[in-house]
Amino acid sequence: MQVSADDVRASAVRAKQAAAVLAPLTRAAKDTALLGMADALLARADELIRANAEDVAAARAAGTSPALVDRLTLTEARLTAMADGLRQVAALDDPVGEVLRGRVLPNGIELRQVRVPLGVVGIIYEARPNVTVDAAGLCLKSGNAALLRGSASAQRSNVALVGVLRDAAVAAGLPADAVQLVPGVDHESVKHLMRLRGLVDVLIPRGGAGLIRAVVEESTVPVIETGIGICHVYVDKDADLDMAVEIAVNSKTQRVSVCNSAETLLVHADVAAEFLPKVLGALTAAGVTIHGDEAVRAADPTALAATEDDWAAEYLSLDLAVKVVPSLDAAVEHIRRYGSGHTESIVTSSLAASRRFIATCDSAAIMVNVSTRFTDGERFGMGAEIGISTQKLHARGPMGLPELTSTTWIGIGDGHLV
Amino acid sequence: MQVSADDVRASAVRAKQAAAVLAPLTRAAKDTALLGMADALLARADELIRANAEDVAAARAAGTSPALVDRLTLTEARLTAMADGLRQVAALDDPVGEVLRGRVLPNGIELRQVRVPLGVVGIIYEARPNVTVDAAGLCLKSGNAALLRGSASAQRSNVALVGVLRDAAVAAGLPADAVQLVPGVDHESVKHLMRLRGLVDVLIPRGGAGLIRAVVEESTVPVIETGIGICHVYVDKDADLDMAVEIAVNSKTQRVSVCNSAETLLVHADVAAEFLPKVLGALTAAGVTIHGDEAVRAADPTALAATEDDWAAEYLSLDLAVKVVPSLDAAVEHIRRYGSGHTESIVTSSLAASRRFIATCDSAAIMVNVSTRFTDGERFGMGAEIGISTQKLHARGPMGLPELTSTTWIGIGDGHLV
Repeated sequence: MQVSADDVRASAVRAKQAAAVLAPLTRAAKDTALLGMADALLARADELIRANAEDVAAARAAGTSPALVDRLTLTEARLTAMADGLRQVAALDDPVGEVLRGRVLPNGIELRQVRVPLGVVGIIYEARPNVTVDAAGLCLKSGNAALLRGSASAQRSNVALVGVLRDAAVAAGLPADAVQLVPGVDHESVKHLMRLRGLVDVLIPRGGAGLIRAVVEESTVPVIETGIGICHVYVDKDADLDMAVEIAVNSKTQRVSVCNSAETLLVHADVAAEFLPKVLGALTAAGVTIHGDEAVRAADPTALAATEDDWAAEYLSLDLAVKVVPSLDAAVEHIRRYGSGHTESIVTSSLAASRRFIATCDSAAIMVNVSTRFTDGERFGMGAEIGISTQKLHARGPMGLPELTSTTWIGIGDGHLV
Repeated sequence: MQVSADDVRASAVRAKQAAAVLAPLTRAAKDTALLGMADALLARADELIRANAEDVAAARAAGTSPALVDRLTLTEARLTAMADGLRQVAALDDPVGEVLRGRVLPNGIELRQVRVPLGVVGIIYEARPNVTVDAAGLCLKSGNAALLRGSASAQRSNVALVGVLRDAAVAAGLPADAVQLVPGVDHESVKHLMRLRGLVDVLIPRGGAGLIRAVVEESTVPVIETGIGICHVYVDKDADLDMAVEIAVNSKTQRVSVCNSAETLLVHADVAAEFLPKVLGALTAAGVTIHGDEAVRAADPTALAATEDDWAAEYLSLDLAVKVVPSLDAAVEHIRRYGSGHTESIVTSSLAASRRFIATCDSAAIMVNVSTRFTDGERFGMGAEIGISTQKLHARGPMGLPELTSTTWIGIGDGHLV
């Protein structure tokens, strides 16, 4: 049975009411709830694994690939990791109440800008049930009510997980509706959610390009785009070529299914003759399929011919597009044209080249002599992240707790008039 | 003739190319251009006033109200004020390049988060031609290309103004397309603009509620909502009642047509008997029409009966809705239900009450013993503002130069791998 717009709206109204209770909570109250949730996940592991087993059986029966079935599966070890994640979030600073700017105005008004929760955060995601717990924990710590919309294939697991989290919230004196699953698992329920501007403060889609595009196109609720990564490594004419080989191989192969892996390698023409044989050999040895332009195929005749589609491809596989460029500016022009604005890395020993690359690339993260794989909330020292934003508004790059807040201006006076 | 989607797209493509040139400019280069623009507005005043006279004549012939004709009219004095505005923007700090966070990670990577321009900023606005110059100046100083879409009634004025600004940009060595008018004055041209996600980085509608709602509903480009203000003054039981009268009158009457004027007065029941006669007398003497609940009408039988519509009204006139509430929490509940999240002011001498109001109201600005009229970029010491955001994402409250920027993470290492 399709869920009605009224059902989805009612759940958002409850979330908004819960958000009003969460906003003024102390850090201690929120941390107590997070630790209680962590304990409850372990105490009720059997029940969670039983519910998950039904999802897993249904996925197997539907012929789901073993890789996806693995991502869906809950084990005691994975529940422990989820509980540890909640404990780590409890250990992070509370972003709410942080004073960002403040001063006494000439007329005596004390003015300050402080972080406040966003309110109701909607998260639309795909099969992995750990996102349910991670997202709920980050939203709670930042004082937001979470409206979670997982995929149909994980629905029994998500219902069970959210049930445990809600019970733990109530046990800690918080409203159950601090965490809710959006009713319904059909596309209609997402559609209804996307129209709740004014009730839902932001939607964060986490998943493939298709999901993100659909939400961006249809939502009237503000959206934060995450996770599409067409990342580039550019090897400058002044690069340490051995370092460049290592960074190219690491950026491409260390983990291929993630948004911060490299998809295109750009090589300055001045070093192509020396560098291409080295890097293509190392990449091929690591199992990478090369899609090259003419210069690359001259250096390695086994390389496939790159097409326009390759320059714009987010492979998420052991494929790499490789191109020789006449200059740093040409590399930047290529990146601006085909990239997704996620992470670009330059390998160079020239300070001027690094400054030019930083000043002209237009991406969430720019690395100098560093693997693209470093763009990550944990590695940046921000703690857990809810995603990596590739848009420019509100948050860009890894989104941790501060990125889940808004701000309020507070002015205190003693009868000030205009 | 209707403008085509291709024409609007082509102008956005030119804006994006210009943005790439603007992003790495020094402050000196941008300030030189701003000062040149200021001089050019005055040097070419005759030409601008002639073009404007045609808009004014057409508006008069169309029966436009004298108030609107006045807002449309350019004079030498108004051009001087616009030029002064550009000089003030030149005097403001450059937000681009500001380091917001930074540290050396344990592995030795130098990591920092810096402000960068948004890229292409689209601004959709109504009749006042001064917005054309203000918006162009703020966008240029923050390193953004401006795509301006004014109203048909000001089109000849805007074409002339943008022509002068573009000539001055070129004279200063900047691309002409740093500032563009979106082609076309029909609704189709706005529609095309709103679909250019990826080319236009943000749209800021400035105008009435209808315009803003339409943009929010239809745009796939991220939107920052500005300017709808249903602001409240709440008089607490512990208020200095004389101060409360002054703040209520000032918030309502100092200027009625602006978003930070008060539209509803909430009065704690404990002081209603003493306070209502004072404040209603003062408001009536200032020409205010009262729309009251039963308690208010008992105190002043000439007050109109407030309906549900009054609590949600942005009057922008000498009308005020007045209600007696049983508690501070009831006042906050009313504000959360009917307010627009702009500015709320509490009058109280109780520290606890001020803390509770600040912690539970959910608005861009919260004032304690201060008129709602204070929420303003200039008054906050931020310099010129492009609008007052009432949304929670990206920027909330007055939007100055920093609010017209995004951020980039920069990581510098020496061969760091994951």
